[in-house]
Amino acid sequence: MHEDICTIPGGHVTSVPGFLAGAVRAGIKENVDKLDLGILYSQRPCAAAAVFTSNRVKAAPIVLCQKHLADGRAQVVVANSGCANACTGEGGLRDAREMAELTAAKLGLRPEDVLVASTGVIGCPMPMERVRAAIRDVVLSADGGDGLARAIMTTDTVPKQIAVRFVWQGRQYTIGGIAKGAGMIHPQMATMLSFLATDAPAESGFLGAALRQAVDASFNMISIDGDTSTNDMVVVLANGAAGGEPLAEGHPAAGRFLAALTQVCVYLAQAICRDGEGATKFIQVRVEGAASEADARRAAREIVRSLAVKTAVYGSDPNWGRILAALGNSGAEMIEENTTLYLGECCLYRGGCPLDYDESAARAVLAGAEVDIRVDLGLGDGAATAWGCDITEEYVRLNSAYRT
Amino acid sequence: MHEDICTIPGGHVTSVPGFLAGAVRAGIKENVDKLDLGILYSQRPCAAAAVFTSNRVKAAPIVLCQKHLADGRAQVVVANSGCANACTGEGGLRDAREMAELTAAKLGLRPEDVLVASTGVIGCPMPMERVRAAIRDVVLSADGGDGLARAIMTTDTVPKQIAVRFVWQGRQYTIGGIAKGAGMIHPQMATMLSFLATDAPAESGFLGAALRQAVDASFNMISIDGDTSTNDMVVVLANGAAGGEPLAEGHPAAGRFLAALTQVCVYLAQAICRDGEGATKFIQVRVEGAASEADARRAAREIVRSLAVKTAVYGSDPNWGRILAALGNSGAEMIEENTTLYLGECCLYRGGCPLDYDESAARAVLAGAEVDIRVDLGLGDGAATAWGCDITEEYVRLNSAYRT
Repeated sequence: MHEDICTIPGGHVTSVPGFLAGAVRAGIKENVDKLDLGILYSQRPCAAAAVFTSNRVKAAPIVLCQKHLADGRAQVVVANSGCANACTGEGGLRDAREMAELTAAKLGLRPEDVLVASTGVIGCPMPMERVRAAIRDVVLSADGGDGLARAIMTTDTVPKQIAVRFVWQGRQYTIGGIAKGAGMIHPQMATMLSFLATDAPAESGFLGAALRQAVDASFNMISIDGDTSTNDMVVVLANGAAGGEPLAEGHPAAGRFLAALTQVCVYLAQAICRDGEGATKFIQVRVEGAASEADARRAAREIVRSLAVKTAVYGSDPNWGRILAALGNSGAEMIEENTTLYLGECCLYRGGCPLDYDESAARAVLAGAEVDIRVDLGLGDGAATAWGCDITEEYVRLNSAYRT
Repeated sequence: MHEDICTIPGGHVTSVPGFLAGAVRAGIKENVDKLDLGILYSQRPCAAAAVFTSNRVKAAPIVLCQKHLADGRAQVVVANSGCANACTGEGGLRDAREMAELTAAKLGLRPEDVLVASTGVIGCPMPMERVRAAIRDVVLSADGGDGLARAIMTTDTVPKQIAVRFVWQGRQYTIGGIAKGAGMIHPQMATMLSFLATDAPAESGFLGAALRQAVDASFNMISIDGDTSTNDMVVVLANGAAGGEPLAEGHPAAGRFLAALTQVCVYLAQAICRDGEGATKFIQVRVEGAASEADARRAAREIVRSLAVKTAVYGSDPNWGRILAALGNSGAEMIEENTTLYLGECCLYRGGCPLDYDESAARAVLAGAEVDIRVDLGLGDGAATAWGCDITEEYVRLNSAYRT
């Protein structure tokens, strides 16, 4: 849509001017060779917005961030993997607060300017001695984004990061982001963790609304296993370093900024699905012709959530009845006679009847690394796309044999 | 609660006086050695009630049964496995109608007195030539219940059946039932298929209300994989053969009848979970102290649905944070500080804090074939119990390598 939004090759969150990052091996994870604590720092104050998990059990860092973001400003995120600091009671809140205080002291800021994010095992206390040493040891640099992306990984096998750029009236604006995913991914608000940075001079109200829209079209449209985590959080920091008029509702570049932010979020959300625990295939479900956009979203997401669909895709079995069954469960308005179903280019079902399709062609679609499912509900203009991955024996193994 | 409700050893659906059944190998299933079509027949007219799937995609037999049950009466169920007759359009409806007509003609009844139930692959047309021959070949007998229970099996490994008896004012009342489950089990209304029979003289209005209550406490409280099928159906036929005053609301034996019906449904629902696709463990989740019963039901069912919980149970990993995360996702009102969590007799979490529990004792609870999870929300009097099973590599294998 916006051809002038271009991806920066090898870009990451500190590709955005004015942002520094760094990460260290704190020893929070059992595997001491892995980075597990990092800091994202803006050299100037930022407008900030975030969306958080809808899980009623909220991790201590989530509770703290909600407080620290009340003024729509933040300048730093300190994040760790290996321990979620969730279900840890008053002690957990104290630990999250101390992480903010130590990071603020290190950088000469107020604790309220620091956001804290954690991911890992639920119910374990933070090993604060290691955390204190690690916060002290982090060295910030303009190419530290990649290390930070690695430090927030849990069962992820690759870091997820991107940066995009667009030009408006001669000025260059950059948005960069990182995310982690892998398991317990069925975001209701956000995904496990994603940090976005921009040098656009976005006002915090506009930034919050833009983030909500971008997240609804990206992180809120993926499902790996149907479980919503206690620590989900997407945060965006806008330091305004690019200069120019403040970006607010009605600004002529607002649409472009939203499109660029959405592009970053969609890329990261898809990257999470491509790297789902044990996954071998990426699944895209497009629902069109729905009675409303909400219906389209519901239907697309339920299809991609369905274990029956995920396992059939894994086995390259064009058992399309499972897709219709998931559609019927989604709560979206539908009439069988109006519904058309495609697997790649193969039309399998139309007008309430199965078609006499070429099974080997359908199997070929499913055998690919990227599987496209498309449904036309034939009722209205609502459309939405959801993403996910297959479920394999390896997913079960990862979630039963190891504690994550 | 009702000690005078006793289970009949080896009992099944035709342990109920006045009911006959039979089953044959129709050749609908690929494996021709397996029974796959059967008939349940009451020698006298019955009050009848049923609950059906809430999936918007409803199989042809479901649509037909809803019509045939409009008068609250039925006398026969003809059922097959191997083909769900779902998403099969007008042709599928015609086939379901013909199955009712042929069965009615065989038994000298009106087609409206016949209910049709199908389970198996979605989107395949019924092989009607085989079905016609099979309906003709079925031989009905008073010990045919076991064969019928086997004829409705798909990936089930054992038939699920039970009969119970209670005495009221010198008269003996019997309730028998069969069910099938295994996969695509997350009933919203009923489970895949269950047929219940009783000789109690239940009026159809009372029968429907009693069935709804019994199903809400049994089939609607289980989850194997979170997917609601297109063919779910529980039906009860009451032939009144036991005699006595008509059972209606306010009848002094109504409570006992409901308790016996619920006992039958709970047994069958649990049997479905014990035989879940690839399952190695049976899971029971009890939620108490909820703000409402609806909240307790929601919470219990979400815990038992969670893939993260199911896989941790499979791996005997007391990763209890996943249970709290599922609880937080359920939509039930909860306050972390009020919540207490038990695994068997081990208390793991109380007052908003993890307890210093004995991990080996918790592992021992999870290593058993039956795992008890108990949550006290500390908010009110709402309580409910849900059942399920673990998810294993074998579940993935069954659902990817074979078409079911």
